[in-house]
Amino acid sequence: MRLITAVIKPFKLDDVKAALEAHGVTGMTVGEASGYGRQRGHTEVYRGAEYQVDLVPKIRLEVLTEEDDADEVIEVIVKAARTGKIGDGKVWSVPVDTAVRVRTGERGPEAL
Amino acid sequence: MRLITAVIKPFKLDDVKAALEAHGVTGMTVGEASGYGRQRGHTEVYRGAEYQVDLVPKIRLEVLTEEDDADEVIEVIVKAARTGKIGDGKVWSVPVDTAVRVRTGERGPEAL
Amino acid sequence: MRLITAVIKPFKLDDVKAALEAHGVTGMTVGEASGYGRQRGHTEVYRGAEYQVDLVPKIRLEVLTEEDDADEVIEVIVKAARTGKIGDGKVWSVPVDTAVRVRTGERGPEAL
Ligand SMILES: Nc1ncnc2c1ncn2[C@@H]1O[C@H](COP(=O)(O)OP(=O)(O)OP(=O)(O)O)[C@@H](O)[C@H]1O
Ligand SMILES: Nc1ncnc2c1ncn2[C@@H]1O[C@H](COP(=O)(O)OP(=O)(O)OP(=O)(O)O)[C@@H](O)[C@H]1O
Ligand SMILES: Nc1ncnc2c1ncn2[C@@H]1O[C@H](COP(=O)(O)OP(=O)(O)OP(=O)(O)O)[C@@H](O)[C@H]1O
Ligand SMILES: [Mg+2]
Ligand SMILES: [Mg+2]
Ligand SMILES: [Mg+2]
Repeated sequence: MRLITAVIKPFKLDDVKAALEAHGVTGMTVGEASGYGRQRGHTEVYRGAEYQVDLVPKIRLEVLTEEDDADEVIEVIVKAARTGKIGDGKVWSVPVDTAVRVRTGERGPEAL
Repeated sequence: MRLITAVIKPFKLDDVKAALEAHGVTGMTVGEASGYGRQRGHTEVYRGAEYQVDLVPKIRLEVLTEEDDADEVIEVIVKAARTGKIGDGKVWSVPVDTAVRVRTGERGPEAL
Repeated sequence: MRLITAVIKPFKLDDVKAALEAHGVTGMTVGEASGYGRQRGHTEVYRGAEYQVDLVPKIRLEVLTEEDDADEVIEVIVKAARTGKIGDGKVWSVPVDTAVRVRTGERGPEAL
C-alpha cells in the first residue's frame, strides 16, 4: 500500500475529488495548509488576488491506495489539479506498512 | 520506528488520548481534518446529526513509536476509537528513518 | 527523497522558515496542530502563558528533500526551532517513493 499526499490549489479540490471518485478511489482525508514552492509564494495568483506573502493557502489531501493503483491515482490527481500556472501543487507518495479499518479491524488492502 | 496516523471521529479523541496515555505512549500530534470512506460520507452520523455532505469532520492524529510497539499502539487506537458504526476511522503506519528531539538533539528511539 | 516533518513552537515558525530559505530549501507546507510530548503538555510555557492543558498549540511543517540533503535539513530545522526549554518539538523523516510537480508533471528530484 501507498499513502499519496497532494498539496493543491483550494479551488481545485472539487475537481480533484470528482476525478478520484470517478477513478474508484474509496476514501480520502483533507486538511487546510499553506506553503510555498520554487517562487517562495511570490507572484502566485490565488482566486484572482495576487498575494505578496510567502505562505499561500493550499489544501492538503491524503489517499491511501493499493500499491498497484498508486501511479494511476497520482496521475488522476495531477491531471485534475493542473491549471498550467505556477503554484499548481506537489504530490508525493510514501510506503505504508499497515492499514486498518477501525470498525471491523480489517487489515491491509481489505481495509481500504 | 514507525509513524502511526489515525483519522477518527472527533468525539472519540478523549477516549483515544486516554487509552494511549494508559498504554504509555510518550507523545502525539493532533490536527483537524475531514474526509470520506467507502460510503462517500453519505448516511454518516456525526454527533447525532445526519450529514448529506461528502466530507465529514474528523480528527487526524499521529503517534511516533518504536518498531516493536507499533502493532500494540495501533490496536489501542482501534479499540478506543471504535463505536461499531460506519465512519469509525482508518489507521495506517509508515516507516520512519530518523526522529529527533529538538531540545536535546537526541536521535532515534531516545528521541521518543 | 525524504519527507521531513517537524512539529515546533508556533512563535519559531519565522526563524525556521528563514533558516530553511537560507539553506536553499525550495518549498514547504505548513499546518496548524496541537500535541504533547514527555511532559504530557503540563508546565509547558507557550508565549509566556502556562497551559495546564495537555494539547499545546504547535505548527506542523513538511519539507520534501533529496536523500542527500535530508540530514542537513533536519539539522537546520532543529537548530532554528530550539529554545532549550521543554516542548521545543520533534522532527522525523520518512522515505518517499515519488514526487511530482503538478504544473509540469516532472518527477523525482526534478520535481523539487
Ligand atoms: N519541497 C517541498 N516540500 C514540501 N511542500 C512543498 C514543497 N514544494 C512545494 N510544496 C507545497 O506545494 C505547494 C505548491 O507548490 P508549487 O506548485 O508552487 O511547487 P513548485 O515546485 O514551485 O512548482 P511551480 O513552479 O509550478 O510553482 C506549496 O505551496 C507547498 O505547500
Ligand atoms: N482510502 C483512504 N485514504 C485516506 N483517508 C481515508 C481513506 N478511507 C478513509 N479515510 C479517512 O478515514 C475516515 C473514516 O473512514 P471510514 O471509517 O468511513 O472508512 P470506511 O472504509 O468507509 O469504513 P466504514 O465502512 O466502517 O465506514 C474518512 O473520513 C477519511 O478521512
Ligand atoms: N511520540 C510523538 N508522536 C507524535 N508527535 C509527538 C510525539 N512526541 C512529541 N510530539 C509532538 O511534538 C510536540 C513537541 O514535543 P516535545 O518537544 O514536548 O517532545 P518531548 O519529547 O517532550 O521533548 P522535551 O522534553 O524537550 O519537551 C508535541 O506537542 C507533539 O505535537
Ligand atoms: Mg511554485
Ligand atoms: Mg465509511
Ligand atoms: Mg515535552
